[in-house]
Amino acid sequence: MTSTASRIVDALREALPAGSIVVDETELRSLERDRSGTARGWALVLVRPGSTTEVQAVVRIADAHGTPLVAQGARTGLAGAGSAVDGAILVDFSRMNRILRIDPLERLAVVQPGVTVQELAEAATEAGLFYAPDPVSAEWATIGGTIATNAGGMRCIKYGVTRESVRSLEVVLADGSAVRTRSDTIKSVAGLDLTSLVVGSEGTLALVTEATVGLRSAPGPARGASALFPSIDAALAAANEIATAASPPAVLELLDSFALAAIRDYDSTLEMPGDARAWLLAVTDARAGADEELAGFERAFAAHGALSSARAETSEELDGLFAVRRVLQPALDGYFGTAIHGDLAVPRAALGEIVAHAAELSERLGVIVSINGHVGDGNFHPIIAFDPDDADQTRRAHEAHRELLARAHRLGGTVTGEHGIGTEKLEALDEELSPRVRELQRAIKAAFDPKGILNPGKKL
Amino acid sequence: MTSTASRIVDALREALPAGSIVVDETELRSLERDRSGTARGWALVLVRPGSTTEVQAVVRIADAHGTPLVAQGARTGLAGAGSAVDGAILVDFSRMNRILRIDPLERLAVVQPGVTVQELAEAATEAGLFYAPDPVSAEWATIGGTIATNAGGMRCIKYGVTRESVRSLEVVLADGSAVRTRSDTIKSVAGLDLTSLVVGSEGTLALVTEATVGLRSAPGPARGASALFPSIDAALAAANEIATAASPPAVLELLDSFALAAIRDYDSTLEMPGDARAWLLAVTDARAGADEELAGFERAFAAHGALSSARAETSEELDGLFAVRRVLQPALDGYFGTAIHGDLAVPRAALGEIVAHAAELSERLGVIVSINGHVGDGNFHPIIAFDPDDADQTRRAHEAHRELLARAHRLGGTVTGEHGIGTEKLEALDEELSPRVRELQRAIKAAFDPKGILNPGKKL
Repeated sequence: MTSTASRIVDALREALPAGSIVVDETELRSLERDRSGTARGWALVLVRPGSTTEVQAVVRIADAHGTPLVAQGARTGLAGAGSAVDGAILVDFSRMNRILRIDPLERLAVVQPGVTVQELAEAATEAGLFYAPDPVSAEWATIGGTIATNAGGMRCIKYGVTRESVRSLEVVLADGSAVRTRSDTIKSVAGLDLTSLVVGSEGTLALVTEATVGLRSAPGPARGASALFPSIDAALAAANEIATAASPPAVLELLDSFALAAIRDYDSTLEMPGDARAWLLAVTDARAGADEELAGFERAFAAHGALSSARAETSEELDGLFAVRRVLQPALDGYFGTAIHGDLAVPRAALGEIVAHAAELSERLGVIVSINGHVGDGNFHPIIAFDPDDADQTRRAHEAHRELLARAHRLGGTVTGEHGIGTEKLEALDEELSPRVRELQRAIKAAFDPKGILNPGKKL
Repeated sequence: MTSTASRIVDALREALPAGSIVVDETELRSLERDRSGTARGWALVLVRPGSTTEVQAVVRIADAHGTPLVAQGARTGLAGAGSAVDGAILVDFSRMNRILRIDPLERLAVVQPGVTVQELAEAATEAGLFYAPDPVSAEWATIGGTIATNAGGMRCIKYGVTRESVRSLEVVLADGSAVRTRSDTIKSVAGLDLTSLVVGSEGTLALVTEATVGLRSAPGPARGASALFPSIDAALAAANEIATAASPPAVLELLDSFALAAIRDYDSTLEMPGDARAWLLAVTDARAGADEELAGFERAFAAHGALSSARAETSEELDGLFAVRRVLQPALDGYFGTAIHGDLAVPRAALGEIVAHAAELSERLGVIVSINGHVGDGNFHPIIAFDPDDADQTRRAHEAHRELLARAHRLGGTVTGEHGIGTEKLEALDEELSPRVRELQRAIKAAFDPKGILNPGKKL
């Protein structure tokens, strides 16, 4: 450790209680990556502040030394936003894990960033309310992490992304000052919308130390229906009909033929017939009119030639329908050994062309490009399966991913619907945002963080 | 006109088609104020660009000369955001008034900024869809103006403010470059959220030249119920019960006893009984479960001691219930001659204290402080009636408004729920946002507009 590094660690030790600093190499190495898997920088130290005041102390030390700060939630991110950069102080929020208030009259919760999404969702349910954001990692993902990434989930088609549930934030700025972004009222147009700017900024603008989030009425019981289709085009037509119905579904998920084949091989108990080329699952959680919605799903399935459909009236039955979706990732990861997990979004009208392009890429490049995901809001997760020991196939898999991203752009889409940019998508961002917009974003970053110490090299 | 001014006007004449420039003093003076009514600066010229390219040309001329630019919609704003500053080029978007696309599959509309809210709402309805934002000025207010102010309306309790309906923007930046803020997809986390930053920025960051807005499913027919209460506390208790019910209403409006007295005097056909001290109107537009919602409104009315209630099953009947609300403004304006129209928002739990404070101010300062508005989302519009010819009463009216704003702050509220800051609320903003937050907002402004030519002296 250099003498500067020692001084930083000493200052942190002085500022924080005993036991809230990790410098041990082995432990540190185990904590410096999110789930993006790509190797990045080496952290100097990890700290676990227990209060906003302690976060401020850490930031002031970083500011004084120009040391990079990387905020971390549960490290479940897929884009590298939470991974270390060289010499960084990792700020782990796991000690700031209290739900401070659930307020049924204001329909809000005030929480510390280390609370998990599931803990908040359960507390809301206990109060007869509902926290809508549902990233697949909800059991571990933290409120701070999901705010930093503006996390999505299956229910976005009905309830929107995390941003739609965040009312105001307390943040610590790069100079160590703690500020509130806005009042907690439902409506306010006092000042610029700093809240929305911080949401999704992946720790590059400020550190979230407290969040006030909106809660909704408890939904009705979740019920659903799934169907198998003889072609992906038939499934997409049914999906678009369901997504644009008078009452849009709470969940609308798609699996393609590659996914079904992999699932068939992976788990024979799921009884996947050989002629099925696509699978759809639609869920309603309406408090009123759920019967009509379910009937509407089934009408759309039948109108577009579904081979079979199944209805789930109870949560156990619905869990059964989700079983197919749940094994998707292990099934395709296992197909050739590993896989790239993408995150595109395109207009609904372009889904057919993306699917056709994926098939063409699969054939031309000799890899599997499987299209799956939240088809209801046009956000899907292509899975590109390849053998990591086959260098040429690995290269072709990455080429397929690049071509798919480029096509999504041309169709008016985005290279990241919900996973974020982090380090993984920086190159793709070049194509999506014009040079002038990127310059503007860097100027905003500089307004927040003139020394560039907050998660440098990420997002922008 | 100075020689610089002449050069600017000449350059604008060269850049724009004939007939799209106003320099005539009389015409110009009639176009340089929004409805805030307070006298501000004197414009140099008004231009009516017909395309993004023409807007860019205007901005480049302003940039070259350091000339202020003030974007204008229909000048229906109440905070001064659209009023001239000295020497400004007023940019009137009335020639950019086309609906470019209504897309039922993507559930979006692409519109130019000069389209009125009502024109868009009608086009959406024709396509079987729904544009939710409903400022009271919808018949004249433009999409550009409502985006600049992040306009609210009566239906915000259910559908959110304008921001919740804006998907992406094309904007012209202060250097004349035209950029898109994001892709039109439902979900995207590529880059910082420039869209939300521009929404509500009152023309201080960029000029909106095209908007992609989200459309929703057509709602069910609007039905409602109103009730009269013997006390405002009873009405507030009923309102909070309705607002936090399993299915929140589409509209929830309150009038207090000052309002009812003024309405009684103003229009005797409305049959306002003398013992009524507060009025509530709740509306449902649910596609399913509307009967239950209506019954719920009436249960809440009865449970909190309503003197009487009336139900509206048709749009004509509902229009009849709204009649009381519609005459509020002329009735109170006429009471003493004129009135201050405020725009506060507080947490629901603080509504009772605000009402009590208003009564105390009325008594102490000898003016009428009437509390009315969108009680469902805590956003209300105090009306402070006074005689403009009575200098001392005028002073006391403004004192009452200041004290009310200060109390809203202390209760965790905001000085503007939906009207904006403009020039009218700049002083109040000082109390609401910390110096550090205001400094940060100015730094963001500088990132967008280094020369400070976009609506200088407003919002921030």
